[in-house]
Amino acid sequence: MTAPFILDSRLAGDTFVVGDLPLSRVLLMNDARFLWLVLVPRQSGLSEIMDLADDDQTVLWGEVNAATRTLRDAEPCNKINIGALGNIVRQLHVHVVARREGDAAWPGPVWGSGKAVPYDNATSSELVGRLRESLSLL
Amino acid sequence: MTAPFILDSRLAGDTFVVGDLPLSRVLLMNDARFLWLVLVPRQSGLSEIMDLADDDQTVLWGEVNAATRTLRDAEPCNKINIGALGNIVRQLHVHVVARREGDAAWPGPVWGSGKAVPYDNATSSELVGRLRESLSLL
Repeated sequence: MTAPFILDSRLAGDTFVVGDLPLSRVLLMNDARFLWLVLVPRQSGLSEIMDLADDDQTVLWGEVNAATRTLRDAEPCNKINIGALGNIVRQLHVHVVARREGDAAWPGPVWGSGKAVPYDNATSSELVGRLRESLSLL
Repeated sequence: MTAPFILDSRLAGDTFVVGDLPLSRVLLMNDARFLWLVLVPRQSGLSEIMDLADDDQTVLWGEVNAATRTLRDAEPCNKINIGALGNIVRQLHVHVVARREGDAAWPGPVWGSGKAVPYDNATSSELVGRLRESLSLL
């Protein structure tokens, strides 16, 4: 029997749930400095990309592309940053972040860069709604 | 006529060439603090993963998996970090880095972390040889 998927508590605490794509739960990082999505394949016991079955890896990278398109549609950006690190949170998750020249971490990485600036409630609700629509999750 | 592939001069200056996989040139970052490969698809004009044709994206992620296996075979590590950033060097490239608890940047990202420690010549030659063998590039 397969263990159920449970979202890591740290990821849950740092993000808003946008919704579920076929493989991944899509999260919005609660940091208004960056438009930042996190994709978490809904399977237990994964920590590396290679822990996923080959077919699921293909689905994951397709979902990363969908997240990329959604970020580009949501706001102008100069570069998309994609990262699978997991040094702190071991549950497999992939970051997809819209970067703008001059943003709070530019040109460095967003990970470990300063302190998150939480969204206010109205902004996060509106943004999650727009992201859900863009990802066809409505 | 397609423009020829020319490796970005900054990437070239920071790395040793390991060899060519079917899609990507494999580079070893000249930083003895981390066992760190960089994969650069040998096509001109790419800056985002999505700039690659779908089939080539599949090949790229397969080559990232091969790089992952090679790093794990080369030394014990706790986590593989995968990143496609490109904020500074826009030519599409994917980092694949073996991370060890307590390494020079742990648990933060390697990008932008301190100053690279160059390999001595004997170590880099030996390491490139081992990596070529592990990637079946001999």
